[in-house]
Amino acid sequence: MLAEIKGLNEECGIFGIWGHEDAARLTYYGLHSLQHRGQEGAGIVVAHNGSLSVHKGMGLVTDVFQSGTLDALRGSAAIGHVRYSTAGGGGYENVQPLLFRSQTGAMALAHNGNLTNAIELKLALEGQGSIFQTTSDTEVFAHLIRRSQAPTFVEQMKEALSQIEGAFAFLLLTEKALYAALDPHGFRPLSLGRLGSAYVVASETCAFDVIGATYEREVAPGELLIISREGVRSERFAPEQPRSICSMEYIYFARPDSHVDGINVHTARKNLGKRLALEAPAEADIVTGVPDSSISVAIGYAEASGIPYELGLIKNRYVGRTFIQPSQALREQGVKMKLSPVRGVVAGKRVVMVDDSIVRGTTSRRIVSMLREAGAVEVHVRISAPPITHPCFYGIDTSSKEELIAANRTVEEIRRLIGADSLAFISQEGMLEAIGRPDISPQRGQCLACFTGQYPTRLGQAARPCLTMK
Amino acid sequence: MLAEIKGLNEECGIFGIWGHEDAARLTYYGLHSLQHRGQEGAGIVVAHNGSLSVHKGMGLVTDVFQSGTLDALRGSAAIGHVRYSTAGGGGYENVQPLLFRSQTGAMALAHNGNLTNAIELKLALEGQGSIFQTTSDTEVFAHLIRRSQAPTFVEQMKEALSQIEGAFAFLLLTEKALYAALDPHGFRPLSLGRLGSAYVVASETCAFDVIGATYEREVAPGELLIISREGVRSERFAPEQPRSICSMEYIYFARPDSHVDGINVHTARKNLGKRLALEAPAEADIVTGVPDSSISVAIGYAEASGIPYELGLIKNRYVGRTFIQPSQALREQGVKMKLSPVRGVVAGKRVVMVDDSIVRGTTSRRIVSMLREAGAVEVHVRISAPPITHPCFYGIDTSSKEELIAANRTVEEIRRLIGADSLAFISQEGMLEAIGRPDISPQRGQCLACFTGQYPTRLGQAARPCLTMK
Amino acid sequence: MLAEIKGLNEECGIFGIWGHEDAARLTYYGLHSLQHRGQEGAGIVVAHNGSLSVHKGMGLVTDVFQSGTLDALRGSAAIGHVRYSTAGGGGYENVQPLLFRSQTGAMALAHNGNLTNAIELKLALEGQGSIFQTTSDTEVFAHLIRRSQAPTFVEQMKEALSQIEGAFAFLLLTEKALYAALDPHGFRPLSLGRLGSAYVVASETCAFDVIGATYEREVAPGELLIISREGVRSERFAPEQPRSICSMEYIYFARPDSHVDGINVHTARKNLGKRLALEAPAEADIVTGVPDSSISVAIGYAEASGIPYELGLIKNRYVGRTFIQPSQALREQGVKMKLSPVRGVVAGKRVVMVDDSIVRGTTSRRIVSMLREAGAVEVHVRISAPPITHPCFYGIDTSSKEELIAANRTVEEIRRLIGADSLAFISQEGMLEAIGRPDISPQRGQCLACFTGQYPTRLGQAARPCLTMK
Amino acid sequence: MLAEIKGLNEECGIFGIWGHEDAARLTYYGLHSLQHRGQEGAGIVVAHNGSLSVHKGMGLVTDVFQSGTLDALRGSAAIGHVRYSTAGGGGYENVQPLLFRSQTGAMALAHNGNLTNAIELKLALEGQGSIFQTTSDTEVFAHLIRRSQAPTFVEQMKEALSQIEGAFAFLLLTEKALYAALDPHGFRPLSLGRLGSAYVVASETCAFDVIGATYEREVAPGELLIISREGVRSERFAPEQPRSICSMEYIYFARPDSHVDGINVHTARKNLGKRLALEAPAEADIVTGVPDSSISVAIGYAEASGIPYELGLIKNRYVGRTFIQPSQALREQGVKMKLSPVRGVVAGKRVVMVDDSIVRGTTSRRIVSMLREAGAVEVHVRISAPPITHPCFYGIDTSSKEELIAANRTVEEIRRLIGADSLAFISQEGMLEAIGRPDISPQRGQCLACFTGQYPTRLGQAARPCLTMK
Repeated sequence: MLAEIKGLNEECGIFGIWGHEDAARLTYYGLHSLQHRGQEGAGIVVAHNGSLSVHKGMGLVTDVFQSGTLDALRGSAAIGHVRYSTAGGGGYENVQPLLFRSQTGAMALAHNGNLTNAIELKLALEGQGSIFQTTSDTEVFAHLIRRSQAPTFVEQMKEALSQIEGAFAFLLLTEKALYAALDPHGFRPLSLGRLGSAYVVASETCAFDVIGATYEREVAPGELLIISREGVRSERFAPEQPRSICSMEYIYFARPDSHVDGINVHTARKNLGKRLALEAPAEADIVTGVPDSSISVAIGYAEASGIPYELGLIKNRYVGRTFIQPSQALREQGVKMKLSPVRGVVAGKRVVMVDDSIVRGTTSRRIVSMLREAGAVEVHVRISAPPITHPCFYGIDTSSKEELIAANRTVEEIRRLIGADSLAFISQEGMLEAIGRPDISPQRGQCLACFTGQYPTRLGQAARPCLTMK
Repeated sequence: MLAEIKGLNEECGIFGIWGHEDAARLTYYGLHSLQHRGQEGAGIVVAHNGSLSVHKGMGLVTDVFQSGTLDALRGSAAIGHVRYSTAGGGGYENVQPLLFRSQTGAMALAHNGNLTNAIELKLALEGQGSIFQTTSDTEVFAHLIRRSQAPTFVEQMKEALSQIEGAFAFLLLTEKALYAALDPHGFRPLSLGRLGSAYVVASETCAFDVIGATYEREVAPGELLIISREGVRSERFAPEQPRSICSMEYIYFARPDSHVDGINVHTARKNLGKRLALEAPAEADIVTGVPDSSISVAIGYAEASGIPYELGLIKNRYVGRTFIQPSQALREQGVKMKLSPVRGVVAGKRVVMVDDSIVRGTTSRRIVSMLREAGAVEVHVRISAPPITHPCFYGIDTSSKEELIAANRTVEEIRRLIGADSLAFISQEGMLEAIGRPDISPQRGQCLACFTGQYPTRLGQAARPCLTMK
Repeated sequence: MLAEIKGLNEECGIFGIWGHEDAARLTYYGLHSLQHRGQEGAGIVVAHNGSLSVHKGMGLVTDVFQSGTLDALRGSAAIGHVRYSTAGGGGYENVQPLLFRSQTGAMALAHNGNLTNAIELKLALEGQGSIFQTTSDTEVFAHLIRRSQAPTFVEQMKEALSQIEGAFAFLLLTEKALYAALDPHGFRPLSLGRLGSAYVVASETCAFDVIGATYEREVAPGELLIISREGVRSERFAPEQPRSICSMEYIYFARPDSHVDGINVHTARKNLGKRLALEAPAEADIVTGVPDSSISVAIGYAEASGIPYELGLIKNRYVGRTFIQPSQALREQGVKMKLSPVRGVVAGKRVVMVDDSIVRGTTSRRIVSMLREAGAVEVHVRISAPPITHPCFYGIDTSSKEELIAANRTVEEIRRLIGADSLAFISQEGMLEAIGRPDISPQRGQCLACFTGQYPTRLGQAARPCLTMK
Repeated sequence: MLAEIKGLNEECGIFGIWGHEDAARLTYYGLHSLQHRGQEGAGIVVAHNGSLSVHKGMGLVTDVFQSGTLDALRGSAAIGHVRYSTAGGGGYENVQPLLFRSQTGAMALAHNGNLTNAIELKLALEGQGSIFQTTSDTEVFAHLIRRSQAPTFVEQMKEALSQIEGAFAFLLLTEKALYAALDPHGFRPLSLGRLGSAYVVASETCAFDVIGATYEREVAPGELLIISREGVRSERFAPEQPRSICSMEYIYFARPDSHVDGINVHTARKNLGKRLALEAPAEADIVTGVPDSSISVAIGYAEASGIPYELGLIKNRYVGRTFIQPSQALREQGVKMKLSPVRGVVAGKRVVMVDDSIVRGTTSRRIVSMLREAGAVEVHVRISAPPITHPCFYGIDTSSKEELIAANRTVEEIRRLIGADSLAFISQEGMLEAIGRPDISPQRGQCLACFTGQYPTRLGQAARPCLTMK
């Protein structure tokens, strides 16, 4: 099994707007709808009267911004970022957007993704005397822009974009324009929308719905959008490649009301559930899903199987970092951290428990055991992803998932480990058909690397063990 | 239509525990699971070494309690309270539990419900020189206990309980015992559970699941439970009455994983949906529910009708009081406050929109219009409650619902007002059968006052207009 | 030696204003200037449109009030309170002003002082069914007003005032008037001022200077002032008594720029220093004072003795409750909590160290030892108060001063205990002359109880050991 | 008159410690004692187990650090910084220490001073592709170190130190050593101390007293100290120059208990007062000083003149950024912002008002007028600095002092502008003698540039108008 080397920008949410006098406030609502993509930190940069201002902090969007701080962020263009909670590193310094000032103008950067050659680039830059204040690969990208000798800023950006590898969706704001760029494989979602005469760009379309904007189109892989007073201009920094959008965005990461690359996530999940019911039926009394990502799947499974959907598991809505965790002693006495079984629903029942994936298996084992303690007589586990056998280097945090349970075990072995009465994963074909991409074609492809080990890009030092970014 | 006079304890959540060394911490988790019953304030009182300590504050449970404050609340017995956000009044003074000290010992009180004769009692008490520091009817109850000349504390409580009218579920903590009392009609839910050798009492059973406690039984109408070192003792302060548990607890107030008076709320809601599908079918492409309370109903409707359930509306998870509301201008431009339609799901579709109730009609009108703007070609509204024609005096906040749209309008008139293509309410019989109480009998009854105007109790001055508690 | 029984209102600061549209904001500035009288909690009540609103909290005035909370307190009359930090008890419930609502109108109370018969009164009231939510004697006073059968509110207040004993300065606000009352002996300072057409009342005149108000006169012992739209009316609730203003207000409690009963505090202190220099000269190189209260005394001592005043001790300006205290280990290594000696100033010098009082002697011993460690070759201690031999029951917190070192020891014994080369206290006559009251007369007297044990009032149960208010 | 171009590190406080297990906590106490040097932001970096951790924030030391954050900063070496409040710019990004990470190790920087060639250096660095995240000249220094091709880190630092010009006192922390460097003229104070086996470095010696450390010696101009496990090593990066320590450190900036370059600040100030009394006597009744810096001066003036020192002006102890400023309307009605006159002290008196300096004259005019309104019959102003006629480029913030009143006016003209009855400045010779440096010699010199316009260094672009750092 490969070692895991992770950057810090994985699984984030980005939002940008150009040409609206309430830019900061709309960015706040946009980020709020993207909160599921990152709870550790949030920030907004606005452009106003030829200069950039920033406010950011640790915590949820609603923790970081108060009415006063938001009002102070005047300007008609803004970018914002919500950041995923990573175990190590972190801290304020890594909260985005990053703001870089210079005598020739300032620029702000917000990034979702993971550069696979960040360490190589950073070592080279440091050899040339560059200094770094964050451990984020976003800063590497900024250095590349500033080091470029190309004649125009757009050319400098394109030169920098052509040097970086891996998964990236970038928003860059200057006093003059908002730039949006997506890596040549399009691993991460990035959509363009309109709100009256203003343009918006966001990681997910739910951010458009919440502010009343309309969806225009996807930012294309290898595309650089330049949004300014002259409108939207499209440039390419790389030739068109088969899109490799992350399968996990559909399976568990995106919000169910978003459309990722044009496909509604809830519908995709319901179809995954229907397909699972066909591929792996079960004799059971109720179907229940692990919230939140598997509720839609469970409803689909119930619909196709005729077994009633019931609320057998409930998620405690912990509100971020202020929740006081139960002690080990209390946990052993039965205090639930995140999920509670609903005793009155599952007691005496044969239960189909639908979940999105099995990584290390510990969570699945805990849920199965929890259902049994609450009286379930049988527990049949159905998983809406194929077995995950390889780590992700494109921004899905499997860094805490050191031992992928499916890497070298059979389904039967896993079933025994998690203590289920039966276990089934959806097939790869089943997943692709359910999501709506029966043929993986250059124009409409999905990244399957974590299921197959076939990585769409060179991995560089990212794949070498024991090398972490400092 | 009757005027509405409301106290301040409506729709709250209460939790108590006796005999566990982590009493405060378990109360914290219990209250957290009851957070949906009140977001304005939270508090915990613990008994320790013969004295009571309190910590309380405005905001969510996770806002009010930090690790340090919780650790400081040592003791093996505790009661806690989460309080509903009411428009007027309020403030720290009304956050519960209320703590009353005296030379002969302290007592703390947590209350869910609404006393219909609070104003009469308060006027009388003030006439005798009593002073009040809150606008809560809980304080009235405390005065009655202290004024009682009965020989024992239990007798004093019973005398006080026999003087108050309306809906009430009380928890009272002294250094020597935890007391739980439910009004003679049992309007509000109150359950008893066990956790090892400890006893727990809570507004909803979800609080038991979250701490790993097991359900024992309901607190009976007119019952006073005394929990102390001697175990649980049951007394009656009023003769047994037909239970009149609030229908709205099933329809929208309780958490779906709770069992209210022995009936699982999610299951009750799914059955309401199935019944609605039979009573009021629709020709449509998708079924969608207004989150959170109507999701289960919509799933039931979809299951019975064969029309697929889809995620057509999504709720923005505002985090309490810190969320910055959009300005009127932004709202008019389309920024959504609480609900967003999912354009890609509803566009071009005939939609069945399931909701729990129609009070003033403004919310329903807004949702219908929102769905149409998002492209729905037809909107069929189905309501899982009968028309609400009368105000509630037992603790459901209809104080902002001054004009009950159904009070003197036909269903067709309401349909036109909210702009739906069709509209149907569940029948009263349908509701009772779906919830699981086909025959309203003395032992297993439901309060139907808001649908029928037949109030189970005398109303007193509560029903006189223009009299508010100061 | 007598035991010490303390209430919770000792050593507080109160401020009231009537007839200014910025009442809350001016109260904020007034309380800020009275912050030295209490750092534990602060609160403001305003009267506006016939109702009272409150905001209060734990901590400093600047912690409790933010711009928004202050703006929300609209109204043209207000009272405010800053509360002393007491070891036990406390908590939000005891933060003042206390607000009592009733059907016939609300009243708010702010109190500085200590009632010596509070426990007796409270026991009696509880016997009649009264309930208490605080451990403050202010609440006792409120009950007495409400229990009074007198025909008018002013008569009710006077009846209540005549029942309480001890030291008290009360401000009471209703929708119709601001009331100020001072106990018949006038233990605590309370002054009346004007700001344009508005009236202000404050514990110290520094609050007038800070808001630009002018001093009018003292509130007289036994006087009840009623300030309303009709202007100021004076009533008496007790016959005129010899004033017994607390000596400690001059010696250490009041701010140096205040005038207490017409005498400037800084000047009084400088004169205490001059007198000390005459009564107890020393052969020394420098004079230094223990900040803050003894700086003025030290300057006076230097002026009269010709020994130069130097800055030998400096106070660390801890900002309230947020300061992180050093661990015991760090303290032993020399980390200073409150006072640091200035090594370069005292090294090799014979030092006169001037302090305001010696209570238990531990502080004095620590300072002497600190000066020696910093290189002082001799330390001569001069105290600007006579020896304190008896506890105070009128509001000076000597509750932590359980063993009054001077109660049964000679000056020489004390000198040895604190490790000084010489020690002298000012004489009682010297103190009175220096402050400016050579003859203690009925019109211009000072309380000397802590030096003499001659208490101006009956003490009641306050003087019985082991009785504390619950 | 020259234009003013300012960096952002002016007038700060720095503290470092090496070799103590409570490094962060001692840095906290040290910074707390240096709080007068900067109230806008504070930060601490610790070195532990080969890596650096940082915590910093806006506000006072006690605002930024809570018990938990301090405990998390484990390590036996630390540097800290308190930052002055500057009008423009600012923000979290500029709060120090700045932390720079790289694959070859991290370094943290804390700086007090102002580089006069920062803009030139920054332009050159940006031309070579460097990017900047702050507007601080500290970041320029970090770039120079990283860009250096010298073989060792110490040589790199020395090369960087030789490129920068102006006033600087730097602390630099790596995992292996604590470095302290002072510019060749020694404009800013920087002292070395010991605490057991640990070494401490601080802007002022008061930080040593507060933690119980002993003073060792000054860091010399042009010296680079390297403190590590091998002890303290001294290197020179520039030849020894005549020291030009800032006169204003004595006159108003340093804390009175500090020794600056070996001279006690309080004593220096008292001597300034005595000298002023001889140079510019006055016929008056009382002497008063403008707090805090002029209290010592006023005491000296009183001592030498025989006119009694009184407390005629008092400072309101605003607690940092949370204090709510009075509105313009309230200020006009007499609400005092920072200083209040003590009416009872000054009314009817001829007052000598001692202040440290006159920059724009507006403050002096306001104080004079305030004293007159409070009843002073004459106001004689005495200033303990010579007239300030030239801007400072070495770190004293005169950026808001655009029009130096003394730049082209006579003393008599200034007197009329501020409305005093008489006005006198101390002479330059008088100042130097009073401070204790009668002969300005290479070993013991003072910077007099703001009085004479003779700048000890080349000024570079700092002196060109209209060039500000971005």
